[in-house]
Amino acid sequence: MDENNPPLIALRPRKARSGDRAVRPVRHAAARGLAKENAVDKAYLEDLAPGQVFTSDARTVVDADAIKRFGGEFDPQPWHLSETVARSTFFKELVASGWHTTALTMQLIIQTLPLSGGIIGSGVDELRWPRPVRPGDTLRLHCEIIDVQESKLRPASGTVRVRMTTLNQNDQPVQTMIANLLAFRRPEQTA
Amino acid sequence: MDENNPPLIALRPRKARSGDRAVRPVRHAAARGLAKENAVDKAYLEDLAPGQVFTSDARTVVDADAIKRFGGEFDPQPWHLSETVARSTFFKELVASGWHTTALTMQLIIQTLPLSGGIIGSGVDELRWPRPVRPGDTLRLHCEIIDVQESKLRPASGTVRVRMTTLNQNDQPVQTMIANLLAFRRPEQTA
Repeated sequence: MDENNPPLIALRPRKARSGDRAVRPVRHAAARGLAKENAVDKAYLEDLAPGQVFTSDARTVVDADAIKRFGGEFDPQPWHLSETVARSTFFKELVASGWHTTALTMQLIIQTLPLSGGIIGSGVDELRWPRPVRPGDTLRLHCEIIDVQESKLRPASGTVRVRMTTLNQNDQPVQTMIANLLAFRRPEQTA
Repeated sequence: MDENNPPLIALRPRKARSGDRAVRPVRHAAARGLAKENAVDKAYLEDLAPGQVFTSDARTVVDADAIKRFGGEFDPQPWHLSETVARSTFFKELVASGWHTTALTMQLIIQTLPLSGGIIGSGVDELRWPRPVRPGDTLRLHCEIIDVQESKLRPASGTVRVRMTTLNQNDQPVQTMIANLLAFRRPEQTA
């Protein structure tokens, strides 16, 4: 991105706090270049433009028990269930299910993208897992808006396409995808 | 598919049993037109061709507690957490996270596709959630192989592209995707 031609808004979410996984959706606050903490708590369709980047301060640590628990419930294959048995498989070690990686990424998306109506996805393109998530990995998220389209059918909303890269502690991508998210237009103010 | 021109193999997995979510990967057995129960326990790259269809007898019932548990851990937004609060949201009711639907679909894939090396995905294209999964829904899976490619780099394996449709009890798609899966060539027999 051109430093001399910054995006309309460049947001960074606040750091994750211990209560982030509780019932209420995480609220976003700190914005670079904006003094008021809540100024970009909600981004509407009009606030979004291609080139804007959102990155997570929040980091997710993945441990072997969580990998096995998710695997046991949703993806019961040996490489997600046992370090010992995994050694004789294609992966040669315990690794997280790709669907566990998507779910962990969803945690990070909620903490990273301050969309006014929350994160409502209609779909995902080009989901890839270039390398597996391993026990002890720490994940973070990099999002770049690549397209913003107003809806022809529903004038109050539109679609934002976001390229999302989930990185491990060595800055290696463990997952990439393009998510199509719903974004709402700012409600008209009544006097 | 043309009844007079059937695919190389047309497989149906055995019915789900109570132990299906246990540690060992599910083994596939009953094959249409094949007497021996284990005849198509494993499908290798050479056994797969476009047009082959695999459907799950196994069905997955989704309940409100599971939706809230997954939502609380991975997608803590109000429409995944509380029937009451969900009423005033875009969805107007409790619905499953799309990533919960993918994870539930993974359970069904393992029970449905008899790939010799297990289900190892390199990625997914065109993942869509045309309607949400609701409490009480029963899910099943329809898979159609749309492409089979040998690997140029690794002669022992290849990629199978599979169109996967997750359907609810009203035969409505709740999820569609094209999965790119690894398939292994049959090992050469040593005399």
